[in-house]
Amino acid sequence: MLCGMGEFDLIARYFTRPTARAVLGVGDDCALLQPAPGTQLAISSDMLVEGRHFFADVGPAALGHKALAVNLSDLAACGAKPLAFTLALSLPRADEAWLAGFSQGLFTLADAHGCELVGGDTTQGPLNICITVFGEVPVVNGKSQALLRSGARPGDDVYVSGTLGDARLALEALRGAVILPHGLLAQARQRLERPTPRVALGQALRGIASAAIDVSDGLLGDLRHILRASGAGATLDTAIAINLIATSQSADWAGAGIDPERQLAYTLAGGDDYELAFTAPASARDAVQAAALQAQTPVSRIGRIDADPGLRLLDAAGAPMQRRYASFDHFA
Amino acid sequence: MLCGMGEFDLIARYFTRPTARAVLGVGDDCALLQPAPGTQLAISSDMLVEGRHFFADVGPAALGHKALAVNLSDLAACGAKPLAFTLALSLPRADEAWLAGFSQGLFTLADAHGCELVGGDTTQGPLNICITVFGEVPVVNGKSQALLRSGARPGDDVYVSGTLGDARLALEALRGAVILPHGLLAQARQRLERPTPRVALGQALRGIASAAIDVSDGLLGDLRHILRASGAGATLDTAIAINLIATSQSADWAGAGIDPERQLAYTLAGGDDYELAFTAPASARDAVQAAALQAQTPVSRIGRIDADPGLRLLDAAGAPMQRRYASFDHFA
Repeated sequence: MLCGMGEFDLIARYFTRPTARAVLGVGDDCALLQPAPGTQLAISSDMLVEGRHFFADVGPAALGHKALAVNLSDLAACGAKPLAFTLALSLPRADEAWLAGFSQGLFTLADAHGCELVGGDTTQGPLNICITVFGEVPVVNGKSQALLRSGARPGDDVYVSGTLGDARLALEALRGAVILPHGLLAQARQRLERPTPRVALGQALRGIASAAIDVSDGLLGDLRHILRASGAGATLDTAIAINLIATSQSADWAGAGIDPERQLAYTLAGGDDYELAFTAPASARDAVQAAALQAQTPVSRIGRIDADPGLRLLDAAGAPMQRRYASFDHFA
Repeated sequence: MLCGMGEFDLIARYFTRPTARAVLGVGDDCALLQPAPGTQLAISSDMLVEGRHFFADVGPAALGHKALAVNLSDLAACGAKPLAFTLALSLPRADEAWLAGFSQGLFTLADAHGCELVGGDTTQGPLNICITVFGEVPVVNGKSQALLRSGARPGDDVYVSGTLGDARLALEALRGAVILPHGLLAQARQRLERPTPRVALGQALRGIASAAIDVSDGLLGDLRHILRASGAGATLDTAIAINLIATSQSADWAGAGIDPERQLAYTLAGGDDYELAFTAPASARDAVQAAALQAQTPVSRIGRIDADPGLRLLDAAGAPMQRRYASFDHFA
């Protein structure tokens, strides 16, 4: 249902490229994909809406990057290798500069991950970007190697990749709630607008991690999804979390007047981080570090899975904390 | 990225059902699909926007039906068997009556085709419905059985399924451009709001049709896509088209004051019909009729493919017609 209207031909041109791996790409009623024998297809869909997932004045290249990145992050959380994606786009008008920027940001990230555009739809309407992404997961001896949310077991370690909190810091600064020095804002904004999906780490953790999820709504909220699916609880050491996670920024954050309480809130429940939170048996600590090294992505051990339901936070003295952190609500 | 906001939990509840065939459905980072050995996956994505693809006051059950139907129609045009779909939904607010109606219309059609919801996304924003659908196409002796747009050859017959023009007639009536008696409006509106994807016919035509497309933008416009992809032209007998295609309505249409000129325009270029236009060698006429019978879907032979590029229309006397028909522009 690609519209044949004059200006929308322009849009189609920006998004029609030859496909390498797909049997048939953009330009027929369907795209055709032939997954390799012995593999499953992992599928995820995300819709980005102006004002909720991005500001109206965000750069189009950053938006193209982010729209695909949040989808690749879902593949990473399943340990899937990216293959292809479809793009459905509703635009108020066909603005050539916007299309050039958006497609450049989109395809630069797609090419970096060997993920090709195989189909989609363009229409006129309020700005809306819907991407559905496809990845490949091996099946070994009849068992899927996909990382699920449901495999965490008592005694497992809890890990998170990279750093957390910058995206929320940037969001608050862009909203005017905090004022940041130029360098810190630029650094944090990069994390908000051009998140790095942890695709290599997800694949490296296949057969090692017992459960995984990507951190889109905030670490604690997303970890709760793992706990619910696994029928377990967890205890997190917030002193480790705050020290290990925000280590490179904490001095700068304090300098910008972000008090320790807010640092912890942004780190634990900031959202839009697109890191991986995952669990693994204590016996797999060396394997986790080897996977992190292979994927060139730092990971931090921040707690353990318990048989008792619920999520317990320990402060620097090892005492239980009472404070509750709400899940990230995007821009709401 | 399912939002955890209170009222949006309601939405998630309406769209979370157990999956039968998918390895893993709604509720993890990705859905997992394992296509049968020796098959390809056909994929299509359509985005529906209020004011362009449907009126603001359309019934939610009809909208749920249509959002999936237009996607199933793309699978039909490829000869694919429906397997699964993802739904990304942007809604201004979580209105329970609307959600109940929409999901009922959606799932009734999905269940009729054994097509299960495996994932998606919900967010708050202007009403937008994005469905990505997955179907299965067999590969026989290394050759895909998918129906493509590119296989039409000079001498092939041109066919169209069912009837054309009702959707456009209803659209013009709802816009106030024509006034129809109640019975005719109800009948035409059914075709606009609850189109029937020709899924069984598409599958029955595998190995018989040389090219196929679904008629979403109008017969002539969509047929031109086949001609362009096949490097061919075609000659259509408009007397056959108007007589065979709109036969059950033409008396009613005339009675409602729709002159023959407009009848022909709605039929040839009305749009939103979701019938199949296809080509097949003249030697396959019996096979085409057998496929139509098997699929319980009438088909009409309306012309032939020529080596000369371009689309020629012949009038009732067999003389070339000069009139040009613009492609359907949805609501633009």
